[in-house]
Amino acid sequence: MLRLLALPALLILIGLSSAAEKPNIVVIYADDLGYGDLSCYGHPTIHTPHLDRMAAEGVRFTEFYSAAEVCTPSRAALLTGRYPVRSGMASSKRRVLFPESKGGLPPSEITLATALHGAGYATAAVGKWHLGHLSPHLPTDHGFDSYFGIPYSNDMDRRAELGPRGRAAFLEPKSEYWNVPLMRDKEILERAPDQTQLTRRYTDEAVKFIRSHREGPFFLYLAHSMPHVPLFRSKAFEGISRRGLYGDVVQEVDASVGRVLDTLKELGLQQRTLVVFSSDNGPWLIFDQQGGSAGLLRDGKGSTWEGGMRVPGIFWWPDTIPAGQICRDWASTMDIFATGLAIAGVPLPADRTIDGQDIRPLLTGGGSVPREGFFYYRGTDLFAARTGPWKAHWKTQTGYGQKAPDDHQPPLLFQLDVDPGESWSQSETHAAEVSAIDAAVARHRATLKPVENQLEK
Amino acid sequence: MLRLLALPALLILIGLSSAAEKPNIVVIYADDLGYGDLSCYGHPTIHTPHLDRMAAEGVRFTEFYSAAEVCTPSRAALLTGRYPVRSGMASSKRRVLFPESKGGLPPSEITLATALHGAGYATAAVGKWHLGHLSPHLPTDHGFDSYFGIPYSNDMDRRAELGPRGRAAFLEPKSEYWNVPLMRDKEILERAPDQTQLTRRYTDEAVKFIRSHREGPFFLYLAHSMPHVPLFRSKAFEGISRRGLYGDVVQEVDASVGRVLDTLKELGLQQRTLVVFSSDNGPWLIFDQQGGSAGLLRDGKGSTWEGGMRVPGIFWWPDTIPAGQICRDWASTMDIFATGLAIAGVPLPADRTIDGQDIRPLLTGGGSVPREGFFYYRGTDLFAARTGPWKAHWKTQTGYGQKAPDDHQPPLLFQLDVDPGESWSQSETHAAEVSAIDAAVARHRATLKPVENQLEK
Repeated sequence: MLRLLALPALLILIGLSSAAEKPNIVVIYADDLGYGDLSCYGHPTIHTPHLDRMAAEGVRFTEFYSAAEVCTPSRAALLTGRYPVRSGMASSKRRVLFPESKGGLPPSEITLATALHGAGYATAAVGKWHLGHLSPHLPTDHGFDSYFGIPYSNDMDRRAELGPRGRAAFLEPKSEYWNVPLMRDKEILERAPDQTQLTRRYTDEAVKFIRSHREGPFFLYLAHSMPHVPLFRSKAFEGISRRGLYGDVVQEVDASVGRVLDTLKELGLQQRTLVVFSSDNGPWLIFDQQGGSAGLLRDGKGSTWEGGMRVPGIFWWPDTIPAGQICRDWASTMDIFATGLAIAGVPLPADRTIDGQDIRPLLTGGGSVPREGFFYYRGTDLFAARTGPWKAHWKTQTGYGQKAPDDHQPPLLFQLDVDPGESWSQSETHAAEVSAIDAAVARHRATLKPVENQLEK
Repeated sequence: MLRLLALPALLILIGLSSAAEKPNIVVIYADDLGYGDLSCYGHPTIHTPHLDRMAAEGVRFTEFYSAAEVCTPSRAALLTGRYPVRSGMASSKRRVLFPESKGGLPPSEITLATALHGAGYATAAVGKWHLGHLSPHLPTDHGFDSYFGIPYSNDMDRRAELGPRGRAAFLEPKSEYWNVPLMRDKEILERAPDQTQLTRRYTDEAVKFIRSHREGPFFLYLAHSMPHVPLFRSKAFEGISRRGLYGDVVQEVDASVGRVLDTLKELGLQQRTLVVFSSDNGPWLIFDQQGGSAGLLRDGKGSTWEGGMRVPGIFWWPDTIPAGQICRDWASTMDIFATGLAIAGVPLPADRTIDGQDIRPLLTGGGSVPREGFFYYRGTDLFAARTGPWKAHWKTQTGYGQKAPDDHQPPLLFQLDVDPGESWSQSETHAAEVSAIDAAVARHRATLKPVENQLEK
């Protein structure tokens, strides 16, 4: 057959075949975006046409989890495919990294970038890192060829001498109130960068990376600093949302997603690029109107109630992922690691537990993935676990500033598919389901090993 | 130009032109279905592909109201285009009609069926009526050529001697526990009909009516008894939903919508038929898992919080209504009356206040409708009102069995587009918005006239 093809067609065929082996991977991660904050997840006034279209052209998950309820551990989980308790990137005392922290993602961890880089991928991290701002913890220490972004949260390095005190600084925030660094690779480019420009600048960097690596394969990790407080958006997005400042900010992130997808289409890369969109945890509800919405789910960021950890999850890969699917099986950000490696033809590391699984059967439609369970940690404490639709809570603590957890013995037990709002505990009548969860937890615990805590250093 | 057309083409042109003047109208009404209960409104486990498709082919409203928080008044408002307090179909003492009630929708009221019938429409009511089960209050007294359905709620006429007492009867309901009549026109066909068959039988009647009136114009009012408790679904829908019994029931209603739309398409009527889907009030939350979800909205049925009155609202009319729109302007079931008359070329009654407005500018995209405000009644008491995005509550009462309302002076004030969950009252800082609402209420109240109360007879 090949003899019959003209040379250009043959080259295209080879090119496509090679590309099919190593598709590009783009992960877009929002910060503190809630389950209910997108139009396609039911928000009445936030207008997210680009993410809605991404969902309409791909698959939207209704039970997609971040593996932690706050920022640092959730990002460790995303990039390693492992519960953050395995890498030392979780703490019940200091729940995220701070500017004075010394620790970070250990060199012994294998990130998605490291694994893909080893398989010939060009790799770039753009945006918020929050896995250690000192070497050897920076993106370029962890498999990324380049980095552009802020190394921790945009509300850190607060300059107390400027602006109003406390929460009032967040109501009418100015970039100079926060002395956060903007870095390129390992260098600090700017201090207190104009935060109204960050979403746009990140997107420019992302688009530039895609254009200059159009031959592929590439891995782009675009982690927006928004919509984490303090909220900022560029001039073009001021006042465009009926949802107010928070809506403006989400709509700028949505437009950024649109620019990435449009760039892929313009370059003809859509059929060989998997794009994933998700969020690091639920909405930060203590910030009232400046926090998002978990929709019908209970509670938000900082909590192991569903609203703290169930987030938007959209996968897009035209032709490979059939358009317009809704997947109601649970999955997690840790699966991006295992799925990304599978797509790239890279075997999973054999020397460690990988918690994520290859979810291609869910993406391509109709298949299923056998699951042991999902484990809801608050820091290093296992507060809750689910097997199938049943979720048991041994401890609960809201993200609204509750100082100590409530203990539950027997655990609270909710049937999540029937009761996604976790309203009616059924543990009194469903002892067998509690036992099954207990057994799954025991098996999970048996895989844990002592590890140095990176957040308490 | 006409001289150039062959006779068949001419006939088609005339036919189309005449049809364009009098399009068919189908209103499908669910009972106690919550704002958050459909996939396209963000429910994670209820699978409603037909309603999702209807929305994808039409327009989905995110701020669509029923004009009452319980059944009887909401249906009076839908069919008359007027707040139920105007027709005497609201009461703070007996909030709906009961089997022993003597009253009903007065003969002096003009229903959508009466108005359309006068303009040459064939008219049919199928399903739950609940506007009076004695003449002259029945559907065929109110402009409908025919009626098939139950005249009030499916949980009425409880036979106390059968089954368990109280709420337990709803947990494993059997049709014979309720002696509700099934009527054809003014005759009782059956008592205690097999309620598992009602959704299917209603749909069969609806499809039969459409088929036998395909020449049009016709008006079909298909008011499902489901998902009001006690919940029933036919064999084919048993266990199909991960949401349990409630999900099965909603999914059978969804499939019914699919049959209606498919019938219209099969007959080539889709371009000359407006189909509207909505619900009479929010979810009945006191029934726990057997009640629905208001999504991110507060409270449910029986309450003037948004969850009690904001409901799904989907309009479908291929080619006339552009596909895939989300409309974020508020509208209400009362608008169906004014819009239906406008579409049929029937002037609004001049001798009375019509609260609904012609919302074709919203349906066809891009237009707007000037609004005075929306008024939230609990029975005959005005509990809350909105102008623009601002909603003031002078009284609040949950649908969870709170015995007396809480009074608020100054009123609670919420900015609904920013705060759809009604979490952060702003009345202390927004006196001007409260004054504007007060003024709108005063103008509204000036239009009210004393009327005989039909629910207390």
